[in-house]
Amino acid sequence: MGTETWPRSTLGWLECSACQNVSDVDRPQGTCDRCGGALLARYRLDEAARTLTREVLVERPANLWRYGELLPGTEVALSLGEGYTPLLPALYLGAALEIERLWIKDESLNPTGSLKARGMACAVTMARRYGLRRLALSSSGNDGGAASAYAALAGLGIDVFFPADTPEPFLLEATVFGARVHVGGENIAECGARVRELRQSEGWFDLSTLREPWRLEGNKTLGFEIAEQLDWRLPDVIVYPTGGGTGLIGMWKAFEELGQLGWIDDRRPRMVAVQAEGCAPIVQAWKEGREVAERIVNPRTYASGLRVPATIGDRLILRAIRESNGTALTVTDKEMAAGQLDLARSEGIFAAPEGGATVAAIRELVRRGSIAPGDRVVLVNTGSGLKYPRIPDLRLP
Amino acid sequence: MGTETWPRSTLGWLECSACQNVSDVDRPQGTCDRCGGALLARYRLDEAARTLTREVLVERPANLWRYGELLPGTEVALSLGEGYTPLLPALYLGAALEIERLWIKDESLNPTGSLKARGMACAVTMARRYGLRRLALSSSGNDGGAASAYAALAGLGIDVFFPADTPEPFLLEATVFGARVHVGGENIAECGARVRELRQSEGWFDLSTLREPWRLEGNKTLGFEIAEQLDWRLPDVIVYPTGGGTGLIGMWKAFEELGQLGWIDDRRPRMVAVQAEGCAPIVQAWKEGREVAERIVNPRTYASGLRVPATIGDRLILRAIRESNGTALTVTDKEMAAGQLDLARSEGIFAAPEGGATVAAIRELVRRGSIAPGDRVVLVNTGSGLKYPRIPDLRLP
Repeated sequence: MGTETWPRSTLGWLECSACQNVSDVDRPQGTCDRCGGALLARYRLDEAARTLTREVLVERPANLWRYGELLPGTEVALSLGEGYTPLLPALYLGAALEIERLWIKDESLNPTGSLKARGMACAVTMARRYGLRRLALSSSGNDGGAASAYAALAGLGIDVFFPADTPEPFLLEATVFGARVHVGGENIAECGARVRELRQSEGWFDLSTLREPWRLEGNKTLGFEIAEQLDWRLPDVIVYPTGGGTGLIGMWKAFEELGQLGWIDDRRPRMVAVQAEGCAPIVQAWKEGREVAERIVNPRTYASGLRVPATIGDRLILRAIRESNGTALTVTDKEMAAGQLDLARSEGIFAAPEGGATVAAIRELVRRGSIAPGDRVVLVNTGSGLKYPRIPDLRLP
Repeated sequence: MGTETWPRSTLGWLECSACQNVSDVDRPQGTCDRCGGALLARYRLDEAARTLTREVLVERPANLWRYGELLPGTEVALSLGEGYTPLLPALYLGAALEIERLWIKDESLNPTGSLKARGMACAVTMARRYGLRRLALSSSGNDGGAASAYAALAGLGIDVFFPADTPEPFLLEATVFGARVHVGGENIAECGARVRELRQSEGWFDLSTLREPWRLEGNKTLGFEIAEQLDWRLPDVIVYPTGGGTGLIGMWKAFEELGQLGWIDDRRPRMVAVQAEGCAPIVQAWKEGREVAERIVNPRTYASGLRVPATIGDRLILRAIRESNGTALTVTDKEMAAGQLDLARSEGIFAAPEGGATVAAIRELVRRGSIAPGDRVVLVNTGSGLKYPRIPDLRLP
């Protein structure tokens, strides 16, 4: 790793995902000034293509900054070794699900054990670059820990708001990193409201999902990696457990950028959003053919990362599903737990409940005929099972 | 990663570390038939050097099988993405400890969150190749989870024996992977005796530390990686939390092999073994100038991985410390816990207590003048802090 040249960002400007308003990147921004929509980063792709080639990637560091031309803040990047997680062929689980080619993108091998490290590496890098001093966010679990880790590395203060019934390992993790941890509220939407209520008076920059544009940039590297690890031939289907949804939106953005670079052809994977039966705003909107989702009242599931009753990313998630000819479906908590055991006992991966949910979803889609035996399928295990001490129906010795 | 050629093993024979008896590798072996000593794998290094070069490594997979010529079973390797963990520059912690160049080898980014995945990837690969069906081991925590993961992937049965007060996440992990989990006995030595008592009648192959030769081979890749990541210029000091000690013995073996390949010069790091005040057999033997250690009665520490009252590797650990001009020292549980918080709050790494122990050890060695400000120092964080739900003196909100 000693000899490669560290890439340089070609970050250009921000564009609102709702009203297309363009703004520049020389000051910290949250959502769109004009309409409140989520902001998307845009790059000078011609410039990026001069130094970023498929060939040069072979010599780049084994973390997400290998794609540094297409990330923000690359020259001053914070890194804990995030990204470049394995894409594991799942022979046994594939056979059990009657799919010939199934892969697991195992995000539990990230720092702090989840996909969320990707986004936070970028977001906290940019926060530090902008000279921000105090961060805050509402968290369903993993993003709180990831944000706290990078904030500690950057020397920034952080307040994390978790819902009341968040499993203890998430609280432990953020506390160890020195975050100010607040526990209360029925669900993440209430925590988010609390952050927005206080951020002005406290001087916090809000790192909550899609309330700033940089987490999405880190998360999109999930898409870059799946493409690279499959030798630039995208899979037919990607199954993603969808709470806030920045992983799915991020992958879709990654494929758009790779297409513009000419590295992949026009074919895109069918994007599948999996949600919990007890909290499925996206699935409900999808079934009703709507472009935005309605907030779920009284969301219930043991998968903290899926207990997200409303997301500002709803429009972008639904658009990606629609454009990709994908779908959205629910699974029960019981099915998720069974999926966790399937992943563990067939493939040696202790997945989060969210990862388990994708297994149950694939089983259902094969049954419906929506996934064919010859399809190349990738499931995303978004995090480690270690942060969820209780699995329904599993007893310890 | 689609284009590289998978390397081939050049495994040659086994050599007893105590009596130098040579044996072949065509049948499963535990310890030395003649004297009961730990067996060491030897390779046909001339053959290895024909395909394994420092240059070719750049294109090899980002896991430990990149060094496949110098590993067993490479052609039939089981992989969950183990190894090639980041070596992170610790600028803030280094400054606090008054060392100019400090790195953290963060083993928590392995599958199952610890270094132990390295050894088990190799050991279970070989167990499957030999056609073994049932495995067993005594475990201080992390090796039980790692063994269970690879056994699940390989489709092999496994029994894991944990001491009575093992933290629950370790039990959860092994259970999720489908292991038969046994909890009982005062410490890992008692668990090990139980395995040896039953293995004949149960038909188990014993995967306990250094009771078979292959775990050490996986663990030695820690040394290969530190060398590679520092551009083949070894550090001056490596600080390693020592329970069973296969990581330290493995690194020492790695440097020997790299020296034979001519990739590194004759200089070796000073190897530092850190143990808990309540369980320090190696430190005690080191202080008394002995070549073997005595079993500790009533070992106590919250760092499960260091609560190892006796290890079959004692002679090899003490030899590596002696030959390297290193040392061995203890830290208290309170110091370990403080070290965990230092790593988390300065560097964004939620380390296991064992990782925290290395910070306390470095602080003491700097105070003594055994580490100079200009020394290049690597500390090994052997695993994730997530499996230890209680940290002394830390309260959750």
